[in-house]
Amino acid sequence: MSLAKSYLMLSGAILSLLAGSVSARADEGMWTFDHLPKAALQKNYGFQPDAAWIQHVVQSSARLAEGCSASFVSADGLVMTNHHCANSCLSALSDKTHDYFRDGFHTQSLAEERQCPGMELDRLDGITDVSSQVAQATKGRQGAAYNAAVQEVESRLTKACAAGDAEHWRCDMVALYHGGQTALYRYRRYKDVRVVMAPEQDIAFFGGDPDNFNYPRYDIDLSMLRVYEDGKPVHTPFLQFDPKGPKAGDLVFTSGNPGRTQRGLPAAALAFQRDIANPAIIDIFSVREGMLWQYARESAEHARQAEDTLFGVQNALKSYSGTEAALRSSDIVAQRAKEDAALQAWIDADPARRAEYGQPFAVVDKAIGVQKDLFARNLALHMALHGLAGDAMTLVEGARERAKPDAKRHAGYHDAQLGEIETELAASEPVYPELETASLALALTSLRQILGADDPLVRTALGNDSPDAVAARLVKETRLADPAIRTALWHGGQAAIDKATDPMVIFARTLFPAYDALRERMLNEVSAPLHKAEGDIARARFAQAQAAGRLDAIYPDATFSPRLSFGTVQGWRQDGADIPPFTDFAGMYRHATGSEPFALPKRWLDAKARLDLSTHLDFVSTNDIVGGNSGSPVLDRQGHAVGLIFDGNLPSLAGDLYYDIGSNRAVSTDTSAIIAALRTVYAEPALADELVRGHR
Amino acid sequence: MSLAKSYLMLSGAILSLLAGSVSARADEGMWTFDHLPKAALQKNYGFQPDAAWIQHVVQSSARLAEGCSASFVSADGLVMTNHHCANSCLSALSDKTHDYFRDGFHTQSLAEERQCPGMELDRLDGITDVSSQVAQATKGRQGAAYNAAVQEVESRLTKACAAGDAEHWRCDMVALYHGGQTALYRYRRYKDVRVVMAPEQDIAFFGGDPDNFNYPRYDIDLSMLRVYEDGKPVHTPFLQFDPKGPKAGDLVFTSGNPGRTQRGLPAAALAFQRDIANPAIIDIFSVREGMLWQYARESAEHARQAEDTLFGVQNALKSYSGTEAALRSSDIVAQRAKEDAALQAWIDADPARRAEYGQPFAVVDKAIGVQKDLFARNLALHMALHGLAGDAMTLVEGARERAKPDAKRHAGYHDAQLGEIETELAASEPVYPELETASLALALTSLRQILGADDPLVRTALGNDSPDAVAARLVKETRLADPAIRTALWHGGQAAIDKATDPMVIFARTLFPAYDALRERMLNEVSAPLHKAEGDIARARFAQAQAAGRLDAIYPDATFSPRLSFGTVQGWRQDGADIPPFTDFAGMYRHATGSEPFALPKRWLDAKARLDLSTHLDFVSTNDIVGGNSGSPVLDRQGHAVGLIFDGNLPSLAGDLYYDIGSNRAVSTDTSAIIAALRTVYAEPALADELVRGHR
Repeated sequence: MSLAKSYLMLSGAILSLLAGSVSARADEGMWTFDHLPKAALQKNYGFQPDAAWIQHVVQSSARLAEGCSASFVSADGLVMTNHHCANSCLSALSDKTHDYFRDGFHTQSLAEERQCPGMELDRLDGITDVSSQVAQATKGRQGAAYNAAVQEVESRLTKACAAGDAEHWRCDMVALYHGGQTALYRYRRYKDVRVVMAPEQDIAFFGGDPDNFNYPRYDIDLSMLRVYEDGKPVHTPFLQFDPKGPKAGDLVFTSGNPGRTQRGLPAAALAFQRDIANPAIIDIFSVREGMLWQYARESAEHARQAEDTLFGVQNALKSYSGTEAALRSSDIVAQRAKEDAALQAWIDADPARRAEYGQPFAVVDKAIGVQKDLFARNLALHMALHGLAGDAMTLVEGARERAKPDAKRHAGYHDAQLGEIETELAASEPVYPELETASLALALTSLRQILGADDPLVRTALGNDSPDAVAARLVKETRLADPAIRTALWHGGQAAIDKATDPMVIFARTLFPAYDALRERMLNEVSAPLHKAEGDIARARFAQAQAAGRLDAIYPDATFSPRLSFGTVQGWRQDGADIPPFTDFAGMYRHATGSEPFALPKRWLDAKARLDLSTHLDFVSTNDIVGGNSGSPVLDRQGHAVGLIFDGNLPSLAGDLYYDIGSNRAVSTDTSAIIAALRTVYAEPALADELVRGHR
Repeated sequence: MSLAKSYLMLSGAILSLLAGSVSARADEGMWTFDHLPKAALQKNYGFQPDAAWIQHVVQSSARLAEGCSASFVSADGLVMTNHHCANSCLSALSDKTHDYFRDGFHTQSLAEERQCPGMELDRLDGITDVSSQVAQATKGRQGAAYNAAVQEVESRLTKACAAGDAEHWRCDMVALYHGGQTALYRYRRYKDVRVVMAPEQDIAFFGGDPDNFNYPRYDIDLSMLRVYEDGKPVHTPFLQFDPKGPKAGDLVFTSGNPGRTQRGLPAAALAFQRDIANPAIIDIFSVREGMLWQYARESAEHARQAEDTLFGVQNALKSYSGTEAALRSSDIVAQRAKEDAALQAWIDADPARRAEYGQPFAVVDKAIGVQKDLFARNLALHMALHGLAGDAMTLVEGARERAKPDAKRHAGYHDAQLGEIETELAASEPVYPELETASLALALTSLRQILGADDPLVRTALGNDSPDAVAARLVKETRLADPAIRTALWHGGQAAIDKATDPMVIFARTLFPAYDALRERMLNEVSAPLHKAEGDIARARFAQAQAAGRLDAIYPDATFSPRLSFGTVQGWRQDGADIPPFTDFAGMYRHATGSEPFALPKRWLDAKARLDLSTHLDFVSTNDIVGGNSGSPVLDRQGHAVGLIFDGNLPSLAGDLYYDIGSNRAVSTDTSAIIAALRTVYAEPALADELVRGHR
């Protein structure tokens, strides 16, 4: 799976967790370009990036608004990113006679390059620390007045920054260190992005799900785009493309936009994930995987129905299992406990700090205690509220929430969000009754297994029937598969819900009191105190570093804004074996069994004799990346592009929570493979020349 | 699930682990009757069992050779044990016109009591410490000479003990503390055991798998047997049956035969189970559960085919998950690490001890390191070698092993064990091709997921095909489903295997080198050093306690021989809620939805109005029990029977490894429920009177 997708997946998880930032260790860190760890780089690598180097990297890097990173690789607006970052574009351009996933996308001239609908690319222009403006504007304000002041200053600063030209400039106020620092990020905004080249899906995602997050890998997860303005390619700074790729042991950088991390979680929250949350999620998802796997085997039609869901479940399982295995094999919890204690001691040592930050770790402990009691119940209930049962609960909950003033509603039901719900309810996504029944029956079986048959919630859900009988009856008799019915019930509000006779709506209505009570406890006793403590901890860490004059030794949690990470090209040791850093074309051909997902495209089979099989294909490095870094360029000391980030290894999945140099590895496609593919496999010498030359 | 069954299940697990014994904490311990913790009982409960009390309990207790415990409850040979301990008897006696599981078994006179085929009951008569005889006989001997000496002394002592009357006496030499102490256990042996009464399976195992290992429970897991000699009921000491049952907070004892524990595992081995082994097993079994669950939903025929396997998988999952949750929520690993360090320090403090015990924990660390590297591979491979693929590997391995001298063969292939293999290969167990294919395909999919597509073992297993294609072809084309073919291949030896063209045999033959190499490493680098270290640690602990004169503060690992445990009737706290110690008939009726497995037998529905619904049904106590304790009587201070052990709660599943008074609970049927059932539900006043009166 791509980093972008896995990030989305993880961010959608129902866990309620914390965030913060801690001191960085060797090669750890996603650094803002205005606070690079120059001392550490000098000490560990004898390298000191100067202002020109930094500015060049910043201006050659880019962010795709959909959730990826990218880089300019020629003076004529050519952009390199991942294949999976262009998925929506290739999908939109494909039609009955063109399947650009299967066949790839190729152009011979600018005229053939086609605009990607809705794609936006942003290029960082500058960073301004606006902490003092924000502090001044919010000084002495609390609660609603504080929020209003923040909104006012944000609106004022971002408007001034875009200078009335929102078409070309985008300005984001970014809260770093959970509000310890605030920066204004100004981007040059490009909305005419065209696809130039994409290989076949079968080489871009060669190995499919079995290889996903694993290494060795053999993928060319590449797409080439071109940015236009006024109908012509733009001219910007760009990264010189090095067709030789990196060597083992090289210092390399990644310039990208990591999406979200929680690097400062207190030890108690990490232990909760390791001991309670992840195991429970892995168990329940594993059973679901087995169910879907067998469902898909029953017929070609069932395989088609279950494909997406099965892929999603397997992907989530890899994420959670990878994180869990890493957490278990690491001493991060014990380390963090010491850091937590040290921070609390620093707070306690000063009355002003005590007043400012209080006892956030005690707050965390208490909230986690409640979460331990509620987690399994919450998980099991939410697993049952998927599909049509989920729609039914949205209708029931939505009716109640919309009756409240906007400010008092639960997250997801604010006026600004209703359109999204309505679009989803009105969408004609197919409903497969057999799959729907199997899913609901399994979820209800798990609910009963987890909570016990006598639990009031289980009794409410099942009455005196078996999970299978309840699911079969609900799916058979409900009419919620019809978008018109869903929409009518939505617009009918509380009155329509109250008098609905649809059995799935009745099911949701009956469960609602228990669902609502549980959510209230999760919000009031878990999420809210954790969120408050999260901010206090992160701000205390920032203040401590600032007071000690060592801001370049800490980095803020990821915020999907431009960051630089550094590391070296090197393998790691796993299960008693050394995993080497590079793969090559020879390995790729050995890896190809001919059966999906290990079937190479015909062009690759045909090209075998013409390729230098020792050419490096993919490599791993110690760079600290997470989802959102997909498409990031890998740079050498000269700032030349030597690779293209597209994944992490399995242990890197814990990168959300912490970085472990022993096992966490970023996975890139080597630029030497890209050049060989363009020249030898795809016969696109012009594009290859543009990369090597730096212009068309 | 019953304790007896769960024990069998766990003992069949492929984990290679250690055993030992550590100092007991409050209520912990499975004590031999000749070393009861009298000081602790006096201190904690103000109770001192005298010699008469002990002898009475010993002589009223019994062991069923199949793997259960029992007790005499009248002067006329009446025996109380669990329903699930009489499963094989009820099954053997049932026929086309009698279903004693569905309907129960009832008698009105001695003449109607029917002999249970093959059932043997043993009653402990005496214990003799023979450590010095064993030490003398083995003095100065090593290796084969040592083993021969042990065999010689065992044969001599047990023969003398049975005094030439093996029909009536059974003598077992029991190695306690892994050889730190050896005792001779003499049992009176009874081979005419008849069934007197058994309730319906639907009340004996009410709640089925969903309730299994959970609590609150509502089961009457009872069967009444009677022991005969010379065609008449025997007269033995017996426990007075107390029809009132216990009260909350009462001190209670269990007298039974715990099967096997590993209470002395070093911290490294516990951590390995917690962090590596259990999670991997739970993951792979969970996926299998989901597959089987869906397979069973496909048709009534599939449900029938998958039923046993699904139940077995769910039961194993509960065992492992319960153990895992307990390990995660406990500080046992940290505690044990301190105990390990202290024991090593004690060893190190004396040259003689250093020579005797060495550095066993360092040996463990090294072996566990290798096991970490091999575990996932070993697990995934063994999951694939089930069913017909497993038979094929048995044939391939068996041919090779039988060509060796007996002493050099691997475990399972010694001459004395070949009959068992031959019986299994010749058995006409049905093979369901669809289920067989699904199982193998899933196992091969997991193998590829876990090891990666490029792993040589995976390449050997799959070639260039998908897991599904390989499994479908093998199951379709093999003839191993035919017992005659399997038997012929077995008897054909290596020559038959070498020239076999059956694709499943070829599959096993091809995998054999990798399988064999892996097994050799597991044996030589993991099991053998762990086993050696296990003995050293256990013997060192025993010697340390002996030297300190505190043998009554430690207890040996369970050995399926008579033990006494003690504790109090009390609930526990779970997920923020207090679980009360008792259930009652009112709860049972509330629990009954009418759908299986929550459907009560008709007799119970009819009797509702006549029953006192506040009668206690089941209860939990802190007694330290494990599998093998099924059927143990629960006794009060007077030595009266107040309950009947039949299960443990979920946290008790970690009882194999350690005892945690905070959550580990034994689950019993209350004697007050037994009396009410006999009098009011089953109208068996004579049997009830015999219990209360103590004779017919």
